[in-house]
Amino acid sequence: MARVALDVMGTDRGPSEIVAGAIMAAQAGHELVLVGDQEVIGPELAKAGSDLEIVHAPDVVEMGDDPGRAVRDKPDSSIMVGARLVASGQADSLVSAGSTGAVMTAGSIIIGRIEGIQRPAIATPIPRPTGIPTLILDAGANLEVKPDHLVRFAVMGSLVAEIVYGMDCPRVGLLNIGTESSKGREVERTAYTLLQEAPVKFVGNVEGGDIPGDVVDVVVTDGFTGNVVLKSMEGTAGLVLTLAGEAFSRRLPDHSREVVQAIEEVRMTIDPDLCAGGAHLLGTRAGVVIGHGSSSRHAVFNAVQLATEGVKGGLIERMERGLARS
Amino acid sequence: MARVALDVMGTDRGPSEIVAGAIMAAQAGHELVLVGDQEVIGPELAKAGSDLEIVHAPDVVEMGDDPGRAVRDKPDSSIMVGARLVASGQADSLVSAGSTGAVMTAGSIIIGRIEGIQRPAIATPIPRPTGIPTLILDAGANLEVKPDHLVRFAVMGSLVAEIVYGMDCPRVGLLNIGTESSKGREVERTAYTLLQEAPVKFVGNVEGGDIPGDVVDVVVTDGFTGNVVLKSMEGTAGLVLTLAGEAFSRRLPDHSREVVQAIEEVRMTIDPDLCAGGAHLLGTRAGVVIGHGSSSRHAVFNAVQLATEGVKGGLIERMERGLARS
Repeated sequence: MARVALDVMGTDRGPSEIVAGAIMAAQAGHELVLVGDQEVIGPELAKAGSDLEIVHAPDVVEMGDDPGRAVRDKPDSSIMVGARLVASGQADSLVSAGSTGAVMTAGSIIIGRIEGIQRPAIATPIPRPTGIPTLILDAGANLEVKPDHLVRFAVMGSLVAEIVYGMDCPRVGLLNIGTESSKGREVERTAYTLLQEAPVKFVGNVEGGDIPGDVVDVVVTDGFTGNVVLKSMEGTAGLVLTLAGEAFSRRLPDHSREVVQAIEEVRMTIDPDLCAGGAHLLGTRAGVVIGHGSSSRHAVFNAVQLATEGVKGGLIERMERGLARS
Repeated sequence: MARVALDVMGTDRGPSEIVAGAIMAAQAGHELVLVGDQEVIGPELAKAGSDLEIVHAPDVVEMGDDPGRAVRDKPDSSIMVGARLVASGQADSLVSAGSTGAVMTAGSIIIGRIEGIQRPAIATPIPRPTGIPTLILDAGANLEVKPDHLVRFAVMGSLVAEIVYGMDCPRVGLLNIGTESSKGREVERTAYTLLQEAPVKFVGNVEGGDIPGDVVDVVVTDGFTGNVVLKSMEGTAGLVLTLAGEAFSRRLPDHSREVVQAIEEVRMTIDPDLCAGGAHLLGTRAGVVIGHGSSSRHAVFNAVQLATEGVKGGLIERMERGLARS
């Protein structure tokens, strides 16, 4: 069984939204323990008639807190208490939509890293029309990387793609400014050679436009590029959808219901919340799933599911073996 | 008057499309000289009854050619002949939709660089719903940059935004993974401080999602990030538009004409070809505008217009003064 420690605190929509997601997940058969302020969570659970277990954590890491300092100065925060539950084996995986930096730091320090990993990486799923996302890593944990980091990202990303997202033999691409092996910076040129020897299905360099397409399943890059690309894509998708809605409404004013439905359908296809709800932090010695700060109950539900899939599929054990081989 | 040397060769759609764009531009009053194979261009012009001037260039840089080698080994290529026309003052600006690498190299070596510029940068316009694009630079010429390069990008980008795109006091942002000044790599943190002192309207760090929005007009970043982001945005926009078209068609099968029109309207709003048709190469001692290889006649027309605006607005002179001050 997979037991998930769910951090209830420190998100934009407040604890009640996270608790609502937790109740959905429990109803679907997931095993959970809620971490956070008992005074806040208790009444929420009572309202819903739920008897989910609470582990009290009186303190909260706020979004504005410095992550490193928060981890040191707020040992009783929900993130830290949750991380200790996982480190001690009382839970198998941590899910948090709180401060990304603090979750990364707590994961790295309290839960610990797999041998050979200096800093874990974030594998963010990007929705595709097929329903199976492209994973991009690193999405922001390691702003600068060395070629062998990119190889580790490829190995870890392939495993999470297989085990958590059910992909068969995922195609790994190196994000670059062109497809030829000579393209890119020194780090990409060296990584290209190393990736050809790595135990993954390396399909070569891919360009920005390939990310939402069907030529690659796992895209490896440094965390600066990954983060900027993800946010650019989100912004562009939102803008184009708004423009499309306006263009249709103007032409078909008598069909506003259909226009709203069609826009909603596309939004649901490309909404990261509904696709996965969170991103795996890869390279820690137990599962960690990071949600974004404005996670809805659906996102929380999906994030718990992601974490559970990872535990049930033996993600960590297989990653330790995979990294030792590469 | 602004006289544009237009490279007719080496593009995906062939010389006839470029000539068609040239004729449109000439009809609108632009002064042009066509550079390329006389045997090919002559008949095209004759067919259209045009007497535009041709400067013969028997050779072509192919898309697959190594740019540096092509510039050395193909001195009679249209790109090189065009660059020499500009260098010798017989034309004021070069427009080419041929090999980007070869145009960059020819611009840098034959036309020459403004003092203090080691390598020119590409300022690519990204369409916005307002009709005024965001400029991103560098879009691929300098894969790695130093903080003071980013300051020069800011100065050059601001001037082209004012002179060519008619923006008043353009807002300059540094592309980063968060808005706080402490965010990013060493290069961004140092550039942030330098940009606060630079003679531009610096609005601080911007994130990927801000690029198509209305908080920034000129986005500076290294050429690796810029290139990957641009292509990611293009890919995402195309995908979302396709999904929207499908969703509407399924719901409103009796309104296929309106659906096609609405999609076409959005496509025209966000199509870079119709927005600008090309990107200024900034830092050369005379105007250079780079079109993409699949440029349509409309893109060629707009690229010639861009080049003309630059010459008429005294872009190069103002850039030399601006860079000397910064």
